[in-house]
Amino acid sequence: MSVLVVGSIAYDTVETPYGSVKDSLGGSALYFSAAASFFDAVNVVGVVGSDFDASKISFLKKRGVNFDGLYVESGDTFRWGGRYHRDLNQRDTLFTYLNVFENFQPKIPAQYREADYVFLANIDPTLQLQVLDQIKNPKLVVLDTMNFWISGKREMLEKVIHHCDILILNDQEARELSDEPNLIRAIKKIANEGAKPKILIVKKGEHGAVLYQKNQFFFVPAYPLDRVIDPTGAGDSFAGGFLGYIAREQNLQAKTLKRALVYGSAIASFNVQDFSFNHLISLKFSELEERFREFKKLTMF
Amino acid sequence: MSVLVVGSIAYDTVETPYGSVKDSLGGSALYFSAAASFFDAVNVVGVVGSDFDASKISFLKKRGVNFDGLYVESGDTFRWGGRYHRDLNQRDTLFTYLNVFENFQPKIPAQYREADYVFLANIDPTLQLQVLDQIKNPKLVVLDTMNFWISGKREMLEKVIHHCDILILNDQEARELSDEPNLIRAIKKIANEGAKPKILIVKKGEHGAVLYQKNQFFFVPAYPLDRVIDPTGAGDSFAGGFLGYIAREQNLQAKTLKRALVYGSAIASFNVQDFSFNHLISLKFSELEERFREFKKLTMF
Repeated sequence: MSVLVVGSIAYDTVETPYGSVKDSLGGSALYFSAAASFFDAVNVVGVVGSDFDASKISFLKKRGVNFDGLYVESGDTFRWGGRYHRDLNQRDTLFTYLNVFENFQPKIPAQYREADYVFLANIDPTLQLQVLDQIKNPKLVVLDTMNFWISGKREMLEKVIHHCDILILNDQEARELSDEPNLIRAIKKIANEGAKPKILIVKKGEHGAVLYQKNQFFFVPAYPLDRVIDPTGAGDSFAGGFLGYIAREQNLQAKTLKRALVYGSAIASFNVQDFSFNHLISLKFSELEERFREFKKLTMF
Repeated sequence: MSVLVVGSIAYDTVETPYGSVKDSLGGSALYFSAAASFFDAVNVVGVVGSDFDASKISFLKKRGVNFDGLYVESGDTFRWGGRYHRDLNQRDTLFTYLNVFENFQPKIPAQYREADYVFLANIDPTLQLQVLDQIKNPKLVVLDTMNFWISGKREMLEKVIHHCDILILNDQEARELSDEPNLIRAIKKIANEGAKPKILIVKKGEHGAVLYQKNQFFFVPAYPLDRVIDPTGAGDSFAGGFLGYIAREQNLQAKTLKRALVYGSAIASFNVQDFSFNHLISLKFSELEERFREFKKLTMF
């Protein structure tokens, strides 16, 4: 089995109360891959500019991440700059230079088109739909999005949602998409809106995450960290751990989904303990397993 | 065993998106008692005005709540008015008439002074300290407070905290008291500040609650309700379930504290399903037990 991800590859400039990095490796497709590759092979589709230093992603290649779908276009790689406040839940975007990403038309290489597990990272829903049109018969499509598309391209987004099996949102996005201030009702409404009920995951930052499927809620707290260095990539590494685990287990039983949510939370908690991929690069699977077990202690009674 | 609570008894006027009530029974001491009385006898110390209708609390008397410490003063009972927004996490206080509560000097009846389990509901820390001066040798003192005292009477509040064993705050209060935006660090800082480490409980509203003791975190989600009718009294009924269960079990083992946190969360979730005491009045212990079991399903993996 393998997992296909279509998303951004970026150079991030990030300031947090603990320091800053300039033009460090980032992007949803890479954070997802770094996490999912703990469990399964990953195929990436994305675009970079001619300024991209391919040696930066060699650590991912060594872990079984395949970059046959990485297109190099003339121009600069996508760049994002952000500043996190003392309260890391607050951040300002300082700049967004789409560069080569502006004209990205995802072309799925032939050998990826029979993908079973697909992650549509947060990009324009029009592109997400183009990706789905090229995949033959996926077992599971997981969709991420953001408030920008909910308010700006709602109709197109709803089309994509119609074709996905699992939708990942944060709590504010869930409230906005459903127009419901009560998060529980928001989740039920979104999950039951289409022709077939969706599995919904809502990320709540420092408050953890919740999974909803078949009228059952499952809650996982955020791993208690007294120092978050850089929250960038938390959502995508979470999604990578989640879908990577499912791809390895090859089933959608409630037990698998719950454990996948915990693995996603565990990897995200490592990711935010340092800038960029600094922590995920050296993370060992045994450390991940250990943190998975710690999550049990956090909620068992 | 029995539990002593000192707090307010009020007539509340509450508007929520689901309706409104005028001069309905409220106050921290009563919400606490209604919850704690599921587990143990409760002794109340508080004050009401000559306008108070004692028949309103007969349901509590039937459940073993003792009102020998209820003082009736000439004047009106404490009145509070609030309006909850469509997003029930937001509320405006419309009025606060302290009335007889303004000159309340809590006098603990002689037969209550050997109390083992004490809940100091959210009142002026000067009064909380007066209460403690009258209790001989309590096994466990649980303290509630609010941002008003953290910013307005900090020195006095810190004296009370020094004498308590368990401190209950909400997440904003924990951040304010510790001056730490990271909630995990805030909790550790507050718990380890005094001469002896405190047990800390932080309530996070729709995101549940967290218990911290001996360097261990334990998280419980909020019970998923798609309709919260009236959040008034949630915190005090939570505290009542928590301390009532501990008083019944008569120990402070980690297992007991965790289960107490779940019982507190369960009772609070019933409380907010209707105005005032409308739900707690008719709640059966078997329903509470059933919800306790449901909490396991919400977090087990």
